[in-house]
Amino acid sequence: MLHEDPDVLTANAAFYRAFADRDLDAMDALWARSARVACIHPGWRALHGRDAVMESWRSILGSSDAPDIVCSGESVIPGETVAVVLCVESLRGGSLAATNVFVREGGEWRIVHHHAGPIAPGGDTGGDAEPPRFLN
Amino acid sequence: MLHEDPDVLTANAAFYRAFADRDLDAMDALWARSARVACIHPGWRALHGRDAVMESWRSILGSSDAPDIVCSGESVIPGETVAVVLCVESLRGGSLAATNVFVREGGEWRIVHHHAGPIAPGGDTGGDAEPPRFLN
Repeated sequence: MLHEDPDVLTANAAFYRAFADRDLDAMDALWARSARVACIHPGWRALHGRDAVMESWRSILGSSDAPDIVCSGESVIPGETVAVVLCVESLRGGSLAATNVFVREGGEWRIVHHHAGPIAPGGDTGGDAEPPRFLN
Repeated sequence: MLHEDPDVLTANAAFYRAFADRDLDAMDALWARSARVACIHPGWRALHGRDAVMESWRSILGSSDAPDIVCSGESVIPGETVAVVLCVESLRGGSLAATNVFVREGGEWRIVHHHAGPIAPGGDTGGDAEPPRFLN
């Protein structure tokens, strides 16, 4: 059931705060250490493993082109050991949908997978019958 | 830790088989009933709720333009009540990355969230330092 779980929403907010602050140490601390992590930045290839994922954050957070992102519309798929936060990332030029997966490690929720990709203008809604843009 | 969980991989395979077979009844049966579902088709808006999600599948599976999709490269974020399968969807014209979230309902893994979006040519890898395509 999608409802709010304060703990995992706190971890999700910390992820976007680390991004906003360009704080690589905070970002590193938020990502899981025991679980194998993965990350899909918009339009990039899927990254697997902590080295590749943290290298991507080093590149993004160290870039003057890194966008300012505001997270909104959070909803939670709650679980005991794995939980998921769905949200919208608003930035200059449009919106991205994000699926953020968290795992419990040492009593904390740590992010194990981030998937962000473009969504149609109008953002996050029940939606009309607009066709998806498959690649054919 | 990302490793294989036969049960949730079986459910993930059934999702792609329902897509390949254009089988709306099978697709309907695979989606959670107690948990609130969500779905992000490529380039579309995020859909929340069973009515909106199933209407989208009715539209996609009933269309002669629905792509043929081959799923590969599955990895699992295992959990007791929530589990996630990451995979690559190959179709004419390119590849999509998919994040599929499953919940336990009545002893079965049912899909509660599907997020698919474009990835760069070359698919699914540890990757080089190619910048993500933010919308600015």
